[in-house]
Amino acid sequence: MRLSVRLLAASALALTLVAAPAVAQDAATIQRAETIRDAAMSRNIALDYVTQLTTRFGARPAGSKAEQDASAWAADYMRAHGFQNVRIEQFPLVGWERGEESGSIVGARPQRLVLAALGHSPGTNGVIEADVVLFDSLEALNAAPAGSLTGKIAYVDAGQMVRMQDGSGYGPLTRIRGAGPAAAAAKGAVAFIMRSVGSDEHRMPHTGTTRYVEGVVPLPGFALAAPDADTVSRLIEMGETVRLRLSSTAHTYETVSQNVIGDIPGRTRPDEIIVLGSHMDSWDLGTGAIDDGAGGAITLAAAKAIAESGRRPARTVRVVLYGAEEVDQPTDTGNGGGAYLRGIGAAVEQHIIAGESDFGADRVYALQLPPGAQGSEFARAAAQVLYPIGVLSSSVPELSGGADIAPLAGAGVPVFGLSQDGTRYFDLHHTADDTLDKIDPAQLNQNVAAWAGLVWLIADSEVDFRALRAAAAPAAR
Amino acid sequence: MRLSVRLLAASALALTLVAAPAVAQDAATIQRAETIRDAAMSRNIALDYVTQLTTRFGARPAGSKAEQDASAWAADYMRAHGFQNVRIEQFPLVGWERGEESGSIVGARPQRLVLAALGHSPGTNGVIEADVVLFDSLEALNAAPAGSLTGKIAYVDAGQMVRMQDGSGYGPLTRIRGAGPAAAAAKGAVAFIMRSVGSDEHRMPHTGTTRYVEGVVPLPGFALAAPDADTVSRLIEMGETVRLRLSSTAHTYETVSQNVIGDIPGRTRPDEIIVLGSHMDSWDLGTGAIDDGAGGAITLAAAKAIAESGRRPARTVRVVLYGAEEVDQPTDTGNGGGAYLRGIGAAVEQHIIAGESDFGADRVYALQLPPGAQGSEFARAAAQVLYPIGVLSSSVPELSGGADIAPLAGAGVPVFGLSQDGTRYFDLHHTADDTLDKIDPAQLNQNVAAWAGLVWLIADSEVDFRALRAAAAPAAR
Repeated sequence: MRLSVRLLAASALALTLVAAPAVAQDAATIQRAETIRDAAMSRNIALDYVTQLTTRFGARPAGSKAEQDASAWAADYMRAHGFQNVRIEQFPLVGWERGEESGSIVGARPQRLVLAALGHSPGTNGVIEADVVLFDSLEALNAAPAGSLTGKIAYVDAGQMVRMQDGSGYGPLTRIRGAGPAAAAAKGAVAFIMRSVGSDEHRMPHTGTTRYVEGVVPLPGFALAAPDADTVSRLIEMGETVRLRLSSTAHTYETVSQNVIGDIPGRTRPDEIIVLGSHMDSWDLGTGAIDDGAGGAITLAAAKAIAESGRRPARTVRVVLYGAEEVDQPTDTGNGGGAYLRGIGAAVEQHIIAGESDFGADRVYALQLPPGAQGSEFARAAAQVLYPIGVLSSSVPELSGGADIAPLAGAGVPVFGLSQDGTRYFDLHHTADDTLDKIDPAQLNQNVAAWAGLVWLIADSEVDFRALRAAAAPAAR
Repeated sequence: MRLSVRLLAASALALTLVAAPAVAQDAATIQRAETIRDAAMSRNIALDYVTQLTTRFGARPAGSKAEQDASAWAADYMRAHGFQNVRIEQFPLVGWERGEESGSIVGARPQRLVLAALGHSPGTNGVIEADVVLFDSLEALNAAPAGSLTGKIAYVDAGQMVRMQDGSGYGPLTRIRGAGPAAAAAKGAVAFIMRSVGSDEHRMPHTGTTRYVEGVVPLPGFALAAPDADTVSRLIEMGETVRLRLSSTAHTYETVSQNVIGDIPGRTRPDEIIVLGSHMDSWDLGTGAIDDGAGGAITLAAAKAIAESGRRPARTVRVVLYGAEEVDQPTDTGNGGGAYLRGIGAAVEQHIIAGESDFGADRVYALQLPPGAQGSEFARAAAQVLYPIGVLSSSVPELSGGADIAPLAGAGVPVFGLSQDGTRYFDLHHTADDTLDKIDPAQLNQNVAAWAGLVWLIADSEVDFRALRAAAAPAAR
């Protein structure tokens, strides 16, 4: 996943538990939500879906055949599980392939390094061999004199990412990943390397996308595994000149990606749509179990739990498995969230609310409702359903969604959030270690239960989150 | 490290805390041991040594230039820290280089696998592409009909290694690693793969040596990382035919390895020698911090702590950094332990006792003395010194040492053990993840303190462990 800074800032705020007295939702609706919640805790399709997805297809890079094949399979999976109007929405994409890569310290005492090219990094066009210049921040690199890195490899080691429940150690370091190659190029460097953006201490480089500047990523960029960053930084601190040999055959190519969309149609107001988003693509190093096979599993299983509850809700519950979340494209039009927004056109006004599950499979601990809904009667009903499974209500500024639903949010669709425990998420995120065994089935089920209970409450209600937001807006200013 | 089954069986026995009344060692000797112990807990050279070793030289495969360079550096390090008679003892070796390797599932849904050739495995001489046949044990593979694996890849997945404090989950699985390639070859297979012998769930294959049969390792053998073993086994359980493409340019070569030997000469009886062993070589994937840079660090630092205590002990304390521990050689003569034994000749009779530190850097929890010494007055003195830092005395059968000192043990030298907590040792062992950051400095220091205190007691005593063992032998039968 890629987190918006806005969401990170929001989720760091204090949580407020709302006591649960009289509510707008009637007792029967709440009771049905509780029943759906409890059933989902013990039996749902989430683990089956993510097991099959990761085992059969492995890594699913944006625009790859694996992503395409997995999307076709997921559409069949939706149909087999009772989803309606299942369809695949294709869009063009600039894909990226890692190819072969290697890095090593050269000289009298050669050492192999464990590293990974940053996503959409260009290849090295042969081998780059150069001395390393260490910076402790992006700011320090930006402050280097013009031309001072000519023929050098710029290296930013800003220290290890701090583990935090809400993942807020991530945002500051992704700036280095996004802007580092361009900053290094501006000073004359021939390549850019950085300590991986991750909280683990394993020999696992964390890849992730870097930034296009005027249609290109300006320099080859690599992330070193934490122990390898330690080694290079220690050697420099010992007074050694560290010279590296880097090679990468990474390259971009024209391809297509696709969104997979399936509905549980509303019983009485099917045009009112609730979007449950996640993404199908993964980074190439792992098998995309926590990022974001789990999100698809949670949202699919929650929608199915609602569908099987004996009464379809009034509104339509739509599951969207977005394509190509993990990439910043040379233009704004290249990812699944944008393609979905373009596809729905004016129907965006019928989108009641959207939520995104893209933070692994560990437990949900907080609910975030849109402004105006916080503290409302709906919020009290939601708290009644979610508190028994460990989910508190939190007071936060308006969410802008993750990368998949951000275009919907930008077009005015309210967003809800179910915050997950991200303490270990960035140990695994964007590494080869993002595999099925990292998912705890009990916590996965708690996610499904939280989504199913909450979404049922929304879907079988007349709550108008846009109106609540509009009413609250003056006070919020 | 390679563990002997005998040591594993022994360390699983119950521990006995010996109360500490009157002892043969006089009060001043014990008090000095306590002083040495306490000083070592707070200040010693262990972390400096292992930091420099792993950072400057990285991986040190047996017979490699890195092992040779690191050995020369370590000899200088010993000299700089006051060791006497520092010398390098060279011996011939069949070395092994991994070269390049890769593995993937091929067919309609290709997936890259994370794997590593087993040590001394031959290369694939191009690419091997074949279907996989799964067995759940070495016995099941051995029971396959003759010729039933012709043209196939034999795969043994005997499940994940169990984490245990004494590491006793390791031994049974190393049988598969040692004998698997020959067993697969006997049934006509073209390659052998197995689930890594390790207790972690990371995308980290565990290498390790496999067995020579009549001068050769009969088949290319690979260890899959645990999540990759999961994937292959699950696909087969789902009814899929799994076809793999394997390649490896691994090869052997003629080289030399070496032992590094340095003494703290005895004050009054320098011919009486106590050997503190560990090994200099490491597997090629990691930097050999826990296996076994830590062992060298602990024994060097303990010997130096004794040397600096203000009075050299009566006997000689000898630190041996053995070369080439990690390899089974085509002949019996090729490792450092054998070379050392040949080198000392008749002086083996002057070797009072030997101990080996080769189980990482986590804390020592039990002392194991040779038969006859257990329960003796010496044992009570040792317990008095070790109990305050969390080390209990244990009653065990005679130790045969790890691979380095096993030749000494075989020649009659008594062996002591300081058992370390191995709970997480096999998460890291023989993987790329064996790096400096995995060492906890506080636990490393506790090791140094235990070794320094115990070895001082032995070195400044007249205890004859051979005589104690001989006296105890009839009763032990």
